[in-house]
Order: sequence, then C-alpha cells, then structure tokens
Amino acid sequence: MEVENRFITIKASIDGFPQLSDFEVKTETLSLSFGVGNKQVVLVKNIYVSIDPYQLNRMKSSQTVLSFASAIIPGEAIDTYGVGRVVESDKPDFQKGDLVVGLLSWGEYTIVKEGTILNKLDPMGLPLPHHVGTLGISGLTAYGGFFEVCKPKKGETVFVSAASGSVGCLVGQYAKLFGCYVVGCAGSQKKVDLLKEELGFDDAFNYKEETDLKSALKRYFPGGIDIYFDNVGGGMLEAAVANMNTFGRVAICGVISEYTDNGKRAAPNMLDVLYKSITIQGFLVKDYIKLHKDFFSTTMEHLQTGKMKAPTDISCGLESVPSAFIGLFLGDNVGKKIVQIADE
Amino acid sequence: MEVENRFITIKASIDGFPQLSDFEVKTETLSLSFGVGNKQVVLVKNIYVSIDPYQLNRMKSSQTVLSFASAIIPGEAIDTYGVGRVVESDKPDFQKGDLVVGLLSWGEYTIVKEGTILNKLDPMGLPLPHHVGTLGISGLTAYGGFFEVCKPKKGETVFVSAASGSVGCLVGQYAKLFGCYVVGCAGSQKKVDLLKEELGFDDAFNYKEETDLKSALKRYFPGGIDIYFDNVGGGMLEAAVANMNTFGRVAICGVISEYTDNGKRAAPNMLDVLYKSITIQGFLVKDYIKLHKDFFSTTMEHLQTGKMKAPTDISCGLESVPSAFIGLFLGDNVGKKIVQIADE
Repeated sequence: MEVENRFITIKASIDGFPQLSDFEVKTETLSLSFGVGNKQVVLVKNIYVSIDPYQLNRMKSSQTVLSFASAIIPGEAIDTYGVGRVVESDKPDFQKGDLVVGLLSWGEYTIVKEGTILNKLDPMGLPLPHHVGTLGISGLTAYGGFFEVCKPKKGETVFVSAASGSVGCLVGQYAKLFGCYVVGCAGSQKKVDLLKEELGFDDAFNYKEETDLKSALKRYFPGGIDIYFDNVGGGMLEAAVANMNTFGRVAICGVISEYTDNGKRAAPNMLDVLYKSITIQGFLVKDYIKLHKDFFSTTMEHLQTGKMKAPTDISCGLESVPSAFIGLFLGDNVGKKIVQIADE
Repeated sequence: MEVENRFITIKASIDGFPQLSDFEVKTETLSLSFGVGNKQVVLVKNIYVSIDPYQLNRMKSSQTVLSFASAIIPGEAIDTYGVGRVVESDKPDFQKGDLVVGLLSWGEYTIVKEGTILNKLDPMGLPLPHHVGTLGISGLTAYGGFFEVCKPKKGETVFVSAASGSVGCLVGQYAKLFGCYVVGCAGSQKKVDLLKEELGFDDAFNYKEETDLKSALKRYFPGGIDIYFDNVGGGMLEAAVANMNTFGRVAICGVISEYTDNGKRAAPNMLDVLYKSITIQGFLVKDYIKLHKDFFSTTMEHLQTGKMKAPTDISCGLESVPSAFIGLFLGDNVGKKIVQIADE
C-alpha cells in the first residue's frame, strides 16, 4: 500500500531563534512493505500532534548534549508524540480504525516501526487532545519531576516558572492537590488570570512586569522557597536559588530561555547552593517511565472528577506547525500546544 | 580563676581578598565564674587549631547566606575546631590535664561553654593533628560528601578539585579504597606528585598548566565523569559539568574561587544538567553528623593500617594564624592546614 504524505521538515540546522523560513512542507510517498521479515509496522493517520520546545535542541548543528533523542536531519520527518488512527497494520494487536497514541510525526501520516512507542487508545470520556499532553509526555514529565525530583512535603512552598505552559500548569495543580503553597509566573496578564482563577494557584505574577526578579520572589515568598520547578533557566533560576530555603530542591525540567541563545547561561550563586544545602537536579521524562501507571490513574481520576484542568492550545492544519512551534519561544501558547492535522 | 589570653581577630569585615593588615592580635583577661547557675564551663589551653577557607565567608559584611555559623564580629575571638588540654573545669566529666577536641578558637585559651562541641580525646596512637583534620571536621565532610551526596558505585570515575587540600585528599583516598577511578587536580607539581605518588590517585594534573579546562578533563576522562567533588567552583565546575556522564553527581563542598570575589560566578550549562540528568548538590558537614561513628571507626582503621594518609601542613605560633589563613587562598597549603599554638 502507498499513501502520499505531506510533512514538515527543516531546511537546515537551526542554531538561533527559529524562523518560518527555516521550515518547509515536503511530500513523500510512504510505501509499506508488510510481511517482510519480522519488521511489523503500522500506518497511522495523524490527528493531533504535540509541539514541544525541546525539539529545537534536536535541530541544532551541535548535538553533543542530546543523548536521549536523535538529531533532526534536514529534509526528513520529525517525530513527536501524538494521537492518530490506524490505516493499515501488519501487527495483530492493531486493527484498521483503531485510535492510537505514541510516537508519530509532524506530518499527515506516520509509519510506526517495531520498537517505537505506540499504544491503543481508549479516550475514557476525555477529549483526544488530553491524551497528547496532560495524559501524555507533558503530564508524566510534570508528575515524575514534581514527585520524584522535588520530593515535596505537605505545606512546603513551590514556585513554578512558565506556569501556564504544558508542564508548569500541571505541576502547579499536582502541588496544590498535594497540599503545597504554590506561586507561578508567566508572561501575560491573561496567563496570570488563568493560574489564579482557573487552576487554583495560590498566587501568580507576570515576570515581564518585574524589574528585579530576586525581589519579586522575596515578595511572593517572604518565608523562602522550598521547591522550584524550573522550565526557563536564566535569570529566573538565579533569582529562585537566591530565595531558596535550606534543603531546597530545584528541578531543571526546561531551559527555554537558553534554547534560542547558546551563549546565554544562568549563574546561580554556588555559595547559596553550598550554604543552604540546595539540590539542583536535571531530569528527563524517560527517567520516570516506571511511574506511568500511577501517573495515569491518578491524573485520569483528577481530570474526570474535575480536580485538575488541562489547558490546551490547539492550532489547525499541518501548515500551522512551524508557527505553533516558533510561538512557544514567544510565549504565545496558553497551556499545552497541539496542532490538529486531521478530523477526529 | 583568670588567664591572660592572646587571640587573633579581624579589625573590620573583609569583603575581598584577605590581607595581613586585616588581622590583629588582641589580649583579654578570661575570667571564669565557675558554679554560677547551671552554666558549666571548661577552660582549655589550645594546642592545635584548624585553619579553614569558609571562615572568610563569616568575615564578610553581608552574611545573608550563612545560616550555619554566626558572623565573626570584629574585635572578638574566632571559633574553630581544634585540640587542646583542660586547664580548669566546672564539668564533672572533664578533669584538669585532659586532652580534648572540639570547638576552640584562634587564641591561646578558650572558654568552652555548655552546649558547645567538646569531647575528651584518646589519640589512639595517632598524632594529635590527625584529630584536628582527618578525624575531625575535614574528614567527616569528605566522608559524608562522598558517600551520601555522591552515592558512588564501584568502578565509577571520580574527579576531585583542590585534591591536595584538607577535604579533597581524603575524598580521593575514600574513592580509591571504595573502588573508583580517581583523578585530582591541584595547583603545583609538588601537589600533583603527592596525589599520584603518595595518596594513590590514578592520575592528577596541575590546572594552572591547562589553557582549556574542558579539553583537559576530556583528556583525563575520555569516558566521562560520573562524580565531581567540587571544592573550587568557577570555571572548573563549568568544565566538569560539560564532561559529566548521564546521571552524574556533583557535590558542592566549597567554592573557594569565589570566596574572595563576590562578583565571580560559575555558569554551568543547564542544558547539560537537563539532558544528562545531572544532580548538583550543596552540602554542609552538619548535614551528616549522624555518620560520625561510622566515619570515625572506618577512618581510624584506614589510618592505623596505613591504607589512608593524612597530609598535614602545620605552622607554628599564634601569630602565624593570619598568614596561614591567607595562604589557603593562594594555594600555599599541602593537605590540612593547622596552626600549633602551644606544645603538646
């Protein structure tokens, strides 16, 4: 069987801020050779695909730090988490028409090979986009990072940056449900309102309105910060470390302020780290795959009972992928950024 | 009872590099009021006192980061770990002539008040200076930091900076005895020789002869660093993080390169921290007091059987305290720096 597949790719490596002109739509003929050897494959029509900042690091010419994901090769398809429907399958456990969730691509179709993450999806009454973000990689990242890296205790104070983003908005809600005091920061009044009025954060602020981040955090945390869930790096990391309490924990989940500028570096005061016995720990979602069952059942229940919300920001059409992606670095998205490629 | 006590103090707060002129010898009359209320006291004649870099942070005008030790007040005595002999005691468990170890001072005598660390000392056949450093605070710092913060596994690679210093030389030896591959750096050929020829390090280098620390570490650790025990901060921390393996651990034990320059800051690449799931953890010896019994028996046995060595660098006379202290920041000391105040 053959299908014409339109997909998004990069023209060349991207080392600075991504531009629309860095991307192009290409067309290929996907030819499935079923039943050849043991290489069982599934052809999936993509419905919703995830748009994530870390992809930019896979697009750089220097790939030395990326051990967990391959470099994105100019001209080739870009893999990403998503939800789709089976068109044709060589694997007995997948039938034509099945809804699936797993590693798809920024394209209309994906050939999912043996060994690649792909599972049949029962939406369990929730919208399909929830399964891309909140119940997908973003959710497990938030869950693993908060509970395993931050090791929270009830009553502790938690600061979340990029708090209206895909991971941040979930971390804040997990922390509130767990019994912590939670403050988030974001880049617009609309986002701040979302955090305080919809997601139950104790407080929130627009970092763009603060001239001195260290003083701002002192104001929001007069008793200090026990846990900082960092999605941004840069000056916010420095300010948070300065405000941490003894035995404070910093989870490094993202460094988005540095993704578009290799020369920019945070310089947290190591005297603070030393004298307050602070732990700064980087982590990747792959470190916490073992938590998936707990994460999924807990989060599903919170969503079904309305205790948690899943802010989602959806653009439509394959052609919108590049602008949706670039928008992540401009702070355009509110909640999990997803592109809908096809009708459900 | 009264004694004349000569002691070292600072004339004013010290915010930059310490100078001899920042210090002075003062004389006071120590007057003991035994039996007043429940305030039991012991008068100790100091023999050996410890000289440690962290004291500089207690001498600064800005004391915000120091939660574990009080600021040093100009004109007053400066407390430090040391070995001495009881002159007079109001506590039944201390008798005149007893050897003691605990929190003494940079002076000829110390009045040790109730609640301050003081223990009777049985040298167990080892030189008294061993009980100031290797079997004292420096040793417990090395032991707690290496085993609890670094969480070593046999066969892992360990890098130690300031490796011929009081803590570093012990960390390297613990790591070798535990079964790790250990490389240290220091600031002179004499120190490098000590590490390789006397202390059993697998390799060592003079960082002053390297123009590119990142490349140097790549050369010494072609397979990457699993554990970095950091005593210095600055560019060495940045270079080590760049060379860490996945799940690498960095123990922040000291930041001596920044003690004398508040504006200097390390900026380790947080993309490395993130993508290699690196943990950077500050710690203080007070976090690991619970390990003291294990530490002491293990280390005592290693010293008695000759498996560990305790390099010690002793200056003589109270007046030598300021130069001994300043020398720490010039890299003058080889091993634990101690000043002998009185004959044994």
